[in-house]
Amino acid sequence: VYAVPVRRVPPLVLVTDRRATGGRDLLAVVEAALDAGLPAVQLRDKDLPGRALWRLAGALRTATRRTGALLFVNDRVDVALAVGADGVHLGRASIPLAAARALVGPGPLIGVSTHAAAEVQAAAGGGADFAFFGPVYATPGKTAVGLGPLAAATGRLPVLAIGGVTAAELRAVRAAGASGVAAIRAILAAPDPAAATRALLAAVAG
Amino acid sequence: VYAVPVRRVPPLVLVTDRRATGGRDLLAVVEAALDAGLPAVQLRDKDLPGRALWRLAGALRTATRRTGALLFVNDRVDVALAVGADGVHLGRASIPLAAARALVGPGPLIGVSTHAAAEVQAAAGGGADFAFFGPVYATPGKTAVGLGPLAAATGRLPVLAIGGVTAAELRAVRAAGASGVAAIRAILAAPDPAAATRALLAAVAG
Repeated sequence: VYAVPVRRVPPLVLVTDRRATGGRDLLAVVEAALDAGLPAVQLRDKDLPGRALWRLAGALRTATRRTGALLFVNDRVDVALAVGADGVHLGRASIPLAAARALVGPGPLIGVSTHAAAEVQAAAGGGADFAFFGPVYATPGKTAVGLGPLAAATGRLPVLAIGGVTAAELRAVRAAGASGVAAIRAILAAPDPAAATRALLAAVAG
Repeated sequence: VYAVPVRRVPPLVLVTDRRATGGRDLLAVVEAALDAGLPAVQLRDKDLPGRALWRLAGALRTATRRTGALLFVNDRVDVALAVGADGVHLGRASIPLAAARALVGPGPLIGVSTHAAAEVQAAAGGGADFAFFGPVYATPGKTAVGLGPLAAATGRLPVLAIGGVTAAELRAVRAAGASGVAAIRAILAAPDPAAATRALLAAVAG
């Protein structure tokens, strides 16, 4: 029933934030997660200008190619295309889904950030391949949406829960219908990012 | 000797800054300039997120199509492609020229912001179609480069002088070898943007 086979949508996506690593080099932390089996990375350091983003995207492309992981780029479809990313991710302030699809063509995956069931429905109708939904749990500066709305949002598209989800919550998140999780601090801020990645992967498969 | 016929490079480009209009609607001011004969607009409201930029670019595309003017989009190659702009403009913080060219193909024009003769030379070698050079005169927060460096920068690519250039300076700027001018406040902040556009066009042709 999905436009894209669900198996193409990774069950775990690491979303980057170079300020969440506790001073460690972002690329080194991501590489540790990739070596631990991380299936996908989304570059989302929103404040970086085009050239710096393009440079970091290129480094992540090299790192993900080495392990076979997918690379997504948030918002900047041009940067995604320039580095040969596997897809793009769109937020509320990004160019519309239809415009992005016209630019990337049918192959690359397009993920969309959503916060309500109606947004997931619109994303599904517009040709998105998957949705982030959240914040499911409270995160710094954001109020939790909760598991009930998450459950109401699933079924139309593969939905990855985002926002404060750790391995401990994965059973509840999966029970609500989410096909996986998008992690930021759960990996980037972990004392051992490789161990955190393995724990999330084990929980998402369990 | 230019990669692109000089005639394709407009002698006057209005660079947008919606904060420079003295509270008037940017689109209305640009439309007044277009109706006065403005041959090209570059959308460069850098702080706008993708969707707002895309929306404004679409409105400018409609307005420029109506008068036959060219439309350039600064930095966001994806937005330029999405609205069918005639070209893109790259600054120091934008993705590299070669990456932008690969994305847009051979047709669209690529302009590059430069501040020294060596940068114009690099842009010419990299396949840019024209360069902005400046600030030739002092502008708020920027020190003037001056006419001597402008003269040294011309001859490799069509060069448009930018930075505090008004109709009064156009003779000197043309004498230095510039093929035209990129205007911001000279049009956007003018009491009568249409009259300011006509004055600049007359001066650039004189």
